[in-house]
Amino acid sequence: MKTIKELLRAKRDGHNWTAAEVEFFVNSVVTGAASNAQAAAFLMAACTRGLNTMEIAALTSSMAASGAQLGRGLSSRKAIDKHSTGGVGDKISLVLTPIAVECGLAVPMISGRGLGHTGGTTDKLESVQGFQTILPMDQMQQLLVEHHTFMVGQSDLIAPADKILYRLRDVTGTVENVGLIASSILSKKLTEGLDGLVMDMKVGSAAFMQSFDDSRQLAEEMLRICKACSLPITFVFTRMDTVIGNSVGNWVEMVEAEQTLAGNGWEDVNEITKQLAIEMVLLGGEVANEDLAEKKVSDVISSGRGVTTFHDILKRQGGDWDASAKKFERVFSKDIVGLAGAVPHVDARELSLAVLRAGGGRQIETDVIDPFAGIVFHKKPFDVLEHDGVVATVYASLPEKCLALQREVEQLLQTTMAPVVEEPSRIIDIWRWG
Amino acid sequence: MKTIKELLRAKRDGHNWTAAEVEFFVNSVVTGAASNAQAAAFLMAACTRGLNTMEIAALTSSMAASGAQLGRGLSSRKAIDKHSTGGVGDKISLVLTPIAVECGLAVPMISGRGLGHTGGTTDKLESVQGFQTILPMDQMQQLLVEHHTFMVGQSDLIAPADKILYRLRDVTGTVENVGLIASSILSKKLTEGLDGLVMDMKVGSAAFMQSFDDSRQLAEEMLRICKACSLPITFVFTRMDTVIGNSVGNWVEMVEAEQTLAGNGWEDVNEITKQLAIEMVLLGGEVANEDLAEKKVSDVISSGRGVTTFHDILKRQGGDWDASAKKFERVFSKDIVGLAGAVPHVDARELSLAVLRAGGGRQIETDVIDPFAGIVFHKKPFDVLEHDGVVATVYASLPEKCLALQREVEQLLQTTMAPVVEEPSRIIDIWRWG
Repeated sequence: MKTIKELLRAKRDGHNWTAAEVEFFVNSVVTGAASNAQAAAFLMAACTRGLNTMEIAALTSSMAASGAQLGRGLSSRKAIDKHSTGGVGDKISLVLTPIAVECGLAVPMISGRGLGHTGGTTDKLESVQGFQTILPMDQMQQLLVEHHTFMVGQSDLIAPADKILYRLRDVTGTVENVGLIASSILSKKLTEGLDGLVMDMKVGSAAFMQSFDDSRQLAEEMLRICKACSLPITFVFTRMDTVIGNSVGNWVEMVEAEQTLAGNGWEDVNEITKQLAIEMVLLGGEVANEDLAEKKVSDVISSGRGVTTFHDILKRQGGDWDASAKKFERVFSKDIVGLAGAVPHVDARELSLAVLRAGGGRQIETDVIDPFAGIVFHKKPFDVLEHDGVVATVYASLPEKCLALQREVEQLLQTTMAPVVEEPSRIIDIWRWG
Repeated sequence: MKTIKELLRAKRDGHNWTAAEVEFFVNSVVTGAASNAQAAAFLMAACTRGLNTMEIAALTSSMAASGAQLGRGLSSRKAIDKHSTGGVGDKISLVLTPIAVECGLAVPMISGRGLGHTGGTTDKLESVQGFQTILPMDQMQQLLVEHHTFMVGQSDLIAPADKILYRLRDVTGTVENVGLIASSILSKKLTEGLDGLVMDMKVGSAAFMQSFDDSRQLAEEMLRICKACSLPITFVFTRMDTVIGNSVGNWVEMVEAEQTLAGNGWEDVNEITKQLAIEMVLLGGEVANEDLAEKKVSDVISSGRGVTTFHDILKRQGGDWDASAKKFERVFSKDIVGLAGAVPHVDARELSLAVLRAGGGRQIETDVIDPFAGIVFHKKPFDVLEHDGVVATVYASLPEKCLALQREVEQLLQTTMAPVVEEPSRIIDIWRWG
């Protein structure tokens, strides 16, 4: 076996590593036998020289194997997860998981936290008082066996190699690399013992991938890895230009998720959720075709059973919904007034950053989140206001943050006297493999 | 100013940094504002994306400026140094410095230690009991003002940025890069306040650059940097296939240097020394042409004044020649016997490694050197032995090391029943600029 130094020299000169060499390197990063400097040199060489499919697949599976893993087949059901590349107001996982479970699937979901301008499912779940997002492995296994789902965050036990490399990528300017992004996402998913994965590939001005072309490249890279790892995967490309649904913020999105499950969701949330649920059911393989999958999903949605499952999931992991709801009644709020002729279409990325600054997200890692900071829209982004009136309400636990958020949203709204545009479908394209 | 992260991202994508950005990065490396991981990512990107001449020149001058520097014009004489890319038995600096001083130049010499299979002038000087290779800055300045020379090693005060980056290059597989090598060499030389530099570019089987083409590329890179920094430079390309002179080892090379200055040197040492001295005198600019420079150098050499200057240099920095000479009389020695018909031409790289293993160099950084480990040849590498007889003597302070060295040299000698080859000139080519 070559030394770390020799491996780096080879990569510097554009040579490929064997799968065993990639695995040796990843293990060395975790044990500390390879220093941070050596890992950083690898990441830069990976960006500038590139990694081939075999190397990226080996990187992905080695990172997955670097920590604890759920075995495959723990649940009697097919284990299917859904992962999003990150959006604004993206509460889809919260709506989708109960529906997928009601459709007869197991959903072992390890989610991320807010990243950049986007929110994270883990932060949203933590807005429910008492909800535990970090669970010991045996409890995750037990939840999966007995209740077919858990919803947790990435603990130090899951893919520690990815955690180390991810942190180094952030400081060494090696984040924007399709191979490294794909392997980072999939390394965590591979620890879930999945039978299939649905990827929600966000595309647009408020997504990380702003063009379909960039998003397609990432999907192609992920597809190559999934083929190498024999993980069936479906990509649903969805528009991420305007806020998804009616809310941005942790608790307000939990509330919207519950309302959506109760049949009171906005059309775009319904559309995305339904399509992703259909894809999960198809990957689960228990229905013969797309029509039957759609029927199954529609039946579950119209039954309203998802609301009960939603609350069951929260309760099982320690969440006290009513306590949070009561607290929310006492937080500060301000209405946002729109002028006749305007549409409440605000720049979703800027809006998300405003909510983040109001306490809804972290500006530095150690920031404590205000679960209640957020915004709820009363008008859809393409509704033209007939009269002056309230288009949204902003919330925050601190009055000065609430006021600042109100001002920021008013600014964003004033600059968007946009022409009337018909609300487009969120679904751009679907790719299926496996 | 961009952040370190943004700079790395730009370099990853093949963009150039401004001189101010390079300087900011180098300073950040020294203060610790840039982490080792970030420095390593830079080094890898430098290797894979390349650095342009402006960036390499800025890197060189920033590394030079990262620590203490001697001012220019400290001595009333022109300050000219000579630096070698590293050879086997390369005691040229020891012979050349006294001659250059006697020719009316100032020689502020900061030398390296043994590196890889090659020896280092600093290690050789330290074989003289009591000789101080690390001096405080004011003492170096005083020696230069009063005596026109000092011979020291690289302390932590000199180009600390180079020291940090050099150590990282070693572990991240980024050593073999012409731009980084050139800037590392020149950053140290730029701290000497030079009016000119002569580079002895070693080429051959026992050099780092084994082909003339590789050596030429390094020289071209160095030339570009020197032009950007307005430092006149001359490159003398010299053959490095066989041991230079009659000895390899620290003390034995000190002895050979003294003998050479006394007029008893081997032809190759005389040839290289004389040519380099001529180039130094020409750079000093006090003679009108090469013929006059040669005359000046020849006069100094034949006067034998170099021996006195040699001993003066050693004494001024605390060296006790006689004490070392007495100790050497008591070390272990073994003769190497050659067979009639053979030539004592051994593989210089392998021989040097054998001396290193006998204690003459370091296998790991913390190894303590045996100053007396070494070999002295009694026959020239191309002499054909008429009868069986002693061709060399090996020395070491430990009897087992001496025996092992004897065996290794005998092995090397036995494998080299070489055909008679006329001894070639060591000088391959000379390039002058400035």
